[in-house]
Amino acid sequence: MEAHKQLTIGMFGFGVVGEGLYKVLQQTSSLRAEIKRVCIKNPEKKRNAPPELFTTERDELLNDAEINVIVEVIDDADAAFQIVSRALTSGKSVVSASKKMIAEHLPALLQLQQQTGASLLYESAACASIPVIRNLEEYYDNDLLHSIKAIVNGSTNFILTKMFEDKLDFPQALMLAQQLGFAESNPALDVEGWDAVNKWTFLLTHAYGIVDHPTHLVFNGIQNIQAGDAAVAREKHYEIKLVAQAIKLRNGKVASYVLPQFVKHDDHLAFVKNEYNGVVIESGFADKQFFYGKGAGSFPTASAVLSDLSALRYGYKYEYKKLYHHRPHELTSDFYVRVYLSFNNWKYIPREKFEWIEEWHADEERKYLIGVLPFLELKNESWWKQNGTSLILTPDPVIEEIDTRKLKMRSLELAGSFDTGI
Amino acid sequence: MEAHKQLTIGMFGFGVVGEGLYKVLQQTSSLRAEIKRVCIKNPEKKRNAPPELFTTERDELLNDAEINVIVEVIDDADAAFQIVSRALTSGKSVVSASKKMIAEHLPALLQLQQQTGASLLYESAACASIPVIRNLEEYYDNDLLHSIKAIVNGSTNFILTKMFEDKLDFPQALMLAQQLGFAESNPALDVEGWDAVNKWTFLLTHAYGIVDHPTHLVFNGIQNIQAGDAAVAREKHYEIKLVAQAIKLRNGKVASYVLPQFVKHDDHLAFVKNEYNGVVIESGFADKQFFYGKGAGSFPTASAVLSDLSALRYGYKYEYKKLYHHRPHELTSDFYVRVYLSFNNWKYIPREKFEWIEEWHADEERKYLIGVLPFLELKNESWWKQNGTSLILTPDPVIEEIDTRKLKMRSLELAGSFDTGI
Repeated sequence: MEAHKQLTIGMFGFGVVGEGLYKVLQQTSSLRAEIKRVCIKNPEKKRNAPPELFTTERDELLNDAEINVIVEVIDDADAAFQIVSRALTSGKSVVSASKKMIAEHLPALLQLQQQTGASLLYESAACASIPVIRNLEEYYDNDLLHSIKAIVNGSTNFILTKMFEDKLDFPQALMLAQQLGFAESNPALDVEGWDAVNKWTFLLTHAYGIVDHPTHLVFNGIQNIQAGDAAVAREKHYEIKLVAQAIKLRNGKVASYVLPQFVKHDDHLAFVKNEYNGVVIESGFADKQFFYGKGAGSFPTASAVLSDLSALRYGYKYEYKKLYHHRPHELTSDFYVRVYLSFNNWKYIPREKFEWIEEWHADEERKYLIGVLPFLELKNESWWKQNGTSLILTPDPVIEEIDTRKLKMRSLELAGSFDTGI
Repeated sequence: MEAHKQLTIGMFGFGVVGEGLYKVLQQTSSLRAEIKRVCIKNPEKKRNAPPELFTTERDELLNDAEINVIVEVIDDADAAFQIVSRALTSGKSVVSASKKMIAEHLPALLQLQQQTGASLLYESAACASIPVIRNLEEYYDNDLLHSIKAIVNGSTNFILTKMFEDKLDFPQALMLAQQLGFAESNPALDVEGWDAVNKWTFLLTHAYGIVDHPTHLVFNGIQNIQAGDAAVAREKHYEIKLVAQAIKLRNGKVASYVLPQFVKHDDHLAFVKNEYNGVVIESGFADKQFFYGKGAGSFPTASAVLSDLSALRYGYKYEYKKLYHHRPHELTSDFYVRVYLSFNNWKYIPREKFEWIEEWHADEERKYLIGVLPFLELKNESWWKQNGTSLILTPDPVIEEIDTRKLKMRSLELAGSFDTGI
């Protein structure tokens, strides 16, 4: 057995997470991890730590041979990538919380890890306190991972919860989230789904060995969801969640997206309220596992960084088993999804794109339909998120194959009746 | 970084878990773990594996220098302890699923691990697919673990769910559990709480550094719970669960027990139905974390064994941080609990033991009361589980201190009214 390493840490960033970690480590002497130096951008800012800890010079950390671990908890994804690259290249282990940086630079980061043999851990970057990456790496080392679905963004989940439980409009719920500190003053990253799809990008790598750029994934946020959608959901005994999902299809390929979705009351994800995160993993061995916890915030994130530090003492690395030891899975767009769509005017909706439409409703203010679309339509087009159109997946939305001939006919019949509909 | 070990496994037992693991490993080539030999008791039994794999001679595994890991998944706790002791002493790593063995021999196993430096992992022994031990070891390495509560026995949870949802009596629900394979033909181990308290014994060690014998803990099963108790719970908008709980009190000591408990509908544990397990961990850093999954069964257990094997490749050992690196916490009985008690006759209930009684109800068939008892009464006496008396803790049952003078008076007043009560 290897002797446990003493960790000497150089930390980039001293925001809420960095300071949280600093405090935690002071109370965690048994970890044998010490923050030797902290690199910050703004030396003028008052910090709750001795001034000699801080520097503004990256090299004082990166060139310090005694520092064997870089903890990177800064906001700027490009700067973070430069720091992490240099640290790995000089043989230092790295713990990072920068989801955007990891998502956007994943191929380069994978290559760097292979070239240098250095360990890059980032449990805190997805679902903070929930050890989802470690579980995907350690528990599902085989072809039996049927599906994974998750709520990975706490801000949007908070907003949706308030729209649902307190019947707030989206703008009201957003304002409340901002007041309570659950959403940024510029909330676009969260609200439009960027944060969620960034996290999902590398969760897909650990789950299925898929390496893709976040912009290639089909995703949306909750910015188009209206109080009326929540009312429809309630009528149908559903809730609305922003769900990241991946499902292995019968052909062995993977269907995946990050989209608003109707969720049944007995679905595990319906349990996830307010700013919490949740992950449901379905596998051939362990059946369904559900993990639930705080997905963001100073201490939950610091707690995940801490667990990565603890793992580094054992020389732990992600093996990316699904990518390197198995044949990686491929994403596919060759399937159909059953969607709910609400909109202001039929003219924005290309009805002919639907395989069929099962239900529609119209009143003076708003119209909605439930129908089946080829997923490729979501991938290639953007009408479904423009002009105030709100697309929400139905529960179990994936349809692998349909009898096209029969259904086109049915669809045409139904389409005829729209014109008289309102 | 250490090169990953090739694991050459000698396995004891080839029941549902052993066979499950064998199948799993055949599909998990990336783990570089191979079962070289399996020791079984009954050579006559038909096995779904090549006959040359099997032996009935322990020494063929324990004396084989090539075998560096012993996986022990047998039923007999005493034999398991002998095997595990010998394996550790000869420097082999051990993965065990025997909760009873671990609970009863914990001090000796701790000593053996310290003497030999060999690793003993047993994630599968508690909550199977839920990585609770690893999380307690890795995430809560400090004084900020406020509390942990868990449903750790799937059989009893299945029975309680059926009593609740289908309004079955205990004997009917038990029979159903047996028919479906969720309870043993001799169900006493599960039903009377032994299995739960065994698991809880070593979870307390990983959570708080407490080392105690299972028989020293206050526990009971669900054998006394009646359909009437479920009816009362429903009226009060509670469910009944068999809950293992530990709470750090203001004086730094730990209150702990494994007892039936009323659980509010919005409690995380209310989410845990049928044969599932769930764990709620409350800490200063990560707030509340909830883990949910299958707590037993061939593949969920094999999946947890697999994750231990995977960890062994990194030389992972439990550090028992709370025990060795911190001042271990102490159990205390110096607190009070609010309990619900249903019974057939007042004569079985020592009313004078109650600090006070808040509510009581009587009809011809059954009586119940809700009141506050010193926990020491549960620890020292057994009237509360005899004569068909059913004790169920109320939600948030622990009361650290009470103003005794005031309450004794109130209690006396109330006690007077019992005699006229029925």
